[in-house]
Amino acid sequence: MPPLPTTGDESLRDRGRLVVQCADRPGIVAAISRFLFEQGANIIQSDQHSTDPSGGRFFLRIEFALDGLDERLTGLQDDFAPVADQFALTHHWVTAAERRKLAIFVSLEDHCLLELLWQRRSGDLQADIVAVISNHADLGYIARDWGVPFHHVPITAATRDEAEGRQQEILAESGADLAVLARYMQILSPEFTTAWRGRVINIHHSFLPAFAGARPFHQAHARGVKLIGATAHYVTADLDAGPIIEQDVRRVDHRDDPADLRRISRQTERAVLARAVAWHVQDRVLIDGNKTIVFAG
Amino acid sequence: MPPLPTTGDESLRDRGRLVVQCADRPGIVAAISRFLFEQGANIIQSDQHSTDPSGGRFFLRIEFALDGLDERLTGLQDDFAPVADQFALTHHWVTAAERRKLAIFVSLEDHCLLELLWQRRSGDLQADIVAVISNHADLGYIARDWGVPFHHVPITAATRDEAEGRQQEILAESGADLAVLARYMQILSPEFTTAWRGRVINIHHSFLPAFAGARPFHQAHARGVKLIGATAHYVTADLDAGPIIEQDVRRVDHRDDPADLRRISRQTERAVLARAVAWHVQDRVLIDGNKTIVFAG
Amino acid sequence: MPPLPTTGDESLRDRGRLVVQCADRPGIVAAISRFLFEQGANIIQSDQHSTDPSGGRFFLRIEFALDGLDERLTGLQDDFAPVADQFALTHHWVTAAERRKLAIFVSLEDHCLLELLWQRRSGDLQADIVAVISNHADLGYIARDWGVPFHHVPITAATRDEAEGRQQEILAESGADLAVLARYMQILSPEFTTAWRGRVINIHHSFLPAFAGARPFHQAHARGVKLIGATAHYVTADLDAGPIIEQDVRRVDHRDDPADLRRISRQTERAVLARAVAWHVQDRVLIDGNKTIVFAG
Amino acid sequence: MPPLPTTGDESLRDRGRLVVQCADRPGIVAAISRFLFEQGANIIQSDQHSTDPSGGRFFLRIEFALDGLDERLTGLQDDFAPVADQFALTHHWVTAAERRKLAIFVSLEDHCLLELLWQRRSGDLQADIVAVISNHADLGYIARDWGVPFHHVPITAATRDEAEGRQQEILAESGADLAVLARYMQILSPEFTTAWRGRVINIHHSFLPAFAGARPFHQAHARGVKLIGATAHYVTADLDAGPIIEQDVRRVDHRDDPADLRRISRQTERAVLARAVAWHVQDRVLIDGNKTIVFAG
Repeated sequence: MPPLPTTGDESLRDRGRLVVQCADRPGIVAAISRFLFEQGANIIQSDQHSTDPSGGRFFLRIEFALDGLDERLTGLQDDFAPVADQFALTHHWVTAAERRKLAIFVSLEDHCLLELLWQRRSGDLQADIVAVISNHADLGYIARDWGVPFHHVPITAATRDEAEGRQQEILAESGADLAVLARYMQILSPEFTTAWRGRVINIHHSFLPAFAGARPFHQAHARGVKLIGATAHYVTADLDAGPIIEQDVRRVDHRDDPADLRRISRQTERAVLARAVAWHVQDRVLIDGNKTIVFAG
Repeated sequence: MPPLPTTGDESLRDRGRLVVQCADRPGIVAAISRFLFEQGANIIQSDQHSTDPSGGRFFLRIEFALDGLDERLTGLQDDFAPVADQFALTHHWVTAAERRKLAIFVSLEDHCLLELLWQRRSGDLQADIVAVISNHADLGYIARDWGVPFHHVPITAATRDEAEGRQQEILAESGADLAVLARYMQILSPEFTTAWRGRVINIHHSFLPAFAGARPFHQAHARGVKLIGATAHYVTADLDAGPIIEQDVRRVDHRDDPADLRRISRQTERAVLARAVAWHVQDRVLIDGNKTIVFAG
Repeated sequence: MPPLPTTGDESLRDRGRLVVQCADRPGIVAAISRFLFEQGANIIQSDQHSTDPSGGRFFLRIEFALDGLDERLTGLQDDFAPVADQFALTHHWVTAAERRKLAIFVSLEDHCLLELLWQRRSGDLQADIVAVISNHADLGYIARDWGVPFHHVPITAATRDEAEGRQQEILAESGADLAVLARYMQILSPEFTTAWRGRVINIHHSFLPAFAGARPFHQAHARGVKLIGATAHYVTADLDAGPIIEQDVRRVDHRDDPADLRRISRQTERAVLARAVAWHVQDRVLIDGNKTIVFAG
Repeated sequence: MPPLPTTGDESLRDRGRLVVQCADRPGIVAAISRFLFEQGANIIQSDQHSTDPSGGRFFLRIEFALDGLDERLTGLQDDFAPVADQFALTHHWVTAAERRKLAIFVSLEDHCLLELLWQRRSGDLQADIVAVISNHADLGYIARDWGVPFHHVPITAATRDEAEGRQQEILAESGADLAVLARYMQILSPEFTTAWRGRVINIHHSFLPAFAGARPFHQAHARGVKLIGATAHYVTADLDAGPIIEQDVRRVDHRDDPADLRRISRQTERAVLARAVAWHVQDRVLIDGNKTIVFAG
């Protein structure tokens, strides 16, 4: 198989994004859009959300075109400082051409990993996959076939801390800025999830908060539900309780045993995880406490 | 508004259904289909399910046409006794023309009530609505407009037993054989739900088992879910935990506050409840412990 | 039944919307957001779309809060004139409290009419229904029950022009600004649809462009499709070919004959039409040639 | 990558299916279920359909368990002959363990091919993939990685007949009994489709009959539809007009250009095709003129 392309899309060279959140007050949009206009930027897409127009929080994502963005990015950030200060903005600028780097954690199931690799090659996922990390050796051949470094990091109760240290090294060496738990069946330590807050996405194979924890298919089968779901969420120290990014469901019926639910669920899991990751790497997901604002589409 | 029609559909006069459950063993279908053939019945639809071909339970629903069914029903049941005995069947015969009688319980929200009335008039719901019972007087005008007797039975903590006694009288007098809780915000006593086991359908405004109990929209909003659901289930003494008949969901996003969720959910609630009731009155729902087998379609 | 409320929602008194389209060029958002800020308006929601950032068309819908909007609307429009001129904007300002007035056209099927009436009473549809017009008398009782004037305007080949004249009178007298064809089985003249361009919404009972024209259920059944749809669109002189506002589908299978398709389709038709009308009356639908931009949600 | 497993699932060794169609008349189910009972077979699943209980066609699919089925299959067929004759049945017996053999035709797009390969390895698709045939060499590496023979058969206007002859040889040599056109952009000759009637499945990238023919994404974009679909159908001499097996749709909006539609559609295409193929190889699809009966689930 040919190696995955690693250079970005040329058409994105002059594209940038500004992502903002702050306390809501009048004049923010006027100030920011004026700034962009004066810089010569052309707004391509703009999404905003106020949790409450009087006294709530304000969220904004702007996608713009600006000639020579690459060279001008530092200057742009400097020039923007007064606006940012005036409204006490939490914000960041990114160039669309600068691709995020994903490390994918897997155990034994391959469907989510394959989906991300395929979407990355097809261009649907605008990011690079720099490492596949697993506590098992089984899926190594997939990573190798697709030209992605594979790291087998076995984990036992006794070696948990050491293994996590090794994972952190791999993340650092590969330059990963997002960890995707693609049916990874180990629990990360609170130290890990705190250090990587907002940068670890997990796919849980149920419609959370229903059937959190272990063996959701057996739980769902026992309860006799008529739909089964999957949930992509940011990982926090509180298991299966982090901010939800995306969910979807599929119909099941009385003929489906837990093995059928597993088979059916795979389709939902890979689709939901791929959408969540795609939105994240395009800066479409903003975290608001334990919820997300998703400027999808 | 013209009164609702109360006579059945003439085209159903010679249609019947046989619904069976029993321990699974070979020969059941052969014996039953031979019996129907010898009686001159023509099978129109047949659905079956085995929880496990060796040692599980067997469920069967057959819809058939038989000339002069009305007059022959008693004889048919007598003739079938040896087959029923041989396989220790739990079963019942019904004529499709014999319409079930529904009592609808409501509180203040009208959407599920209106949906059932409309589907009953359009013919989508093949059943009669013989009573509307409410702990509030507000929706009385709707029942009256549609020509259905309305019974206002106020409930306070002090009068709960007495009120339930009055409800039972109304059910008995109206001849109701199914109670539909169409956003009825009171809890029925265990005595009621036990006596009416398998004959009380509730619509819960969440995707159970998520957000059972009170204020599911606030729970859903607080958790930041991306889909909200509704669940129709048989009512048991265990609140919100009875056998699920049908569920569905709808997409929501960060812009939706609890009031929006309520508005969006109404569409799901009325559709899910109407499907569950329509399936029940056509004997398409078989109860298997705390689950249902639904021979939909 | 109590008459429908006719006053607007108090909470909307200070809410307004500005809807804009023009040739795209830099600075539009900056100019408009600055104008709103200087007027003291607080932006609540803002959606925009460019068909092509260089040389395409630009579409914008802003929802804002402004104290005393009612009294200030005229002044606002005057003050905005220079901005409008500078960018050659096609635009309009509306107060959210100012409710659109709908005339609903029906023939014999009641499901779309009932849905609109119910959504209007529940508050989901923020508009007034000022007339129901039908070529049959059959559904008059529904309009009367809900307290809406009913106009029976029979149509024959010989009286078509005269009947349309009568319809136009009713529209004028009732002050209607949107005509909704809610399963109205007559064709409007090109004169009518031209005069009311962008202000007549029809629901077609197929997934257009499939099965345009007559008897779509029979066409769909003959083709053996596995989903049937419904399409809400603006009516133009070109039958079933106007700009599509909304579509949805529902699953069917080999057991469904054309009568079943009709029954199943009703659910889609009423939902699709109600969404399209709700979006229209909130100025969420912008027409771009033979397409629509829908700022839903 | 490890080669795909080629042996069947042991648990299916004693499983068989009987698929029947005939003119409907009373007694068919009784005769067939009695025959199976007398042979000692245990019915696991049974689905039937009558186009019209009086005078229509009857379709039946029974899945059963029978000890030693492999050895007994020929005897079973012989013993069944009188029943088959009595009701003039068109029918076939298959053992579930006997896997169908697929030849997959592709051109340049890989998503449908990858989906089938992945579902085949995961066990969701219970069939063997014996050949990948393409008019381009580009996707050869995928077939090779997954251990499936790849055949590059270039086609020009001048070599069409010869190329088709080569394709037929490959089909014969590989023992394929189903040809899957997985985004294969060439048209098969009427001779081919006639000879392989009911054994060629195509995926069309629109919701047929809308946008049949070339460039459906451009057609859909020009018409401004709000959903785009995909259709899996049996191929006949009449282009894009063969019996539909499965369809699905996905929501799009005004922001999506034809390239976006292509990207979004891929998800629908691969899912719809995979479902259709999975149903076919499990004998769940029965052809009735230009329609299908699908005993899914």
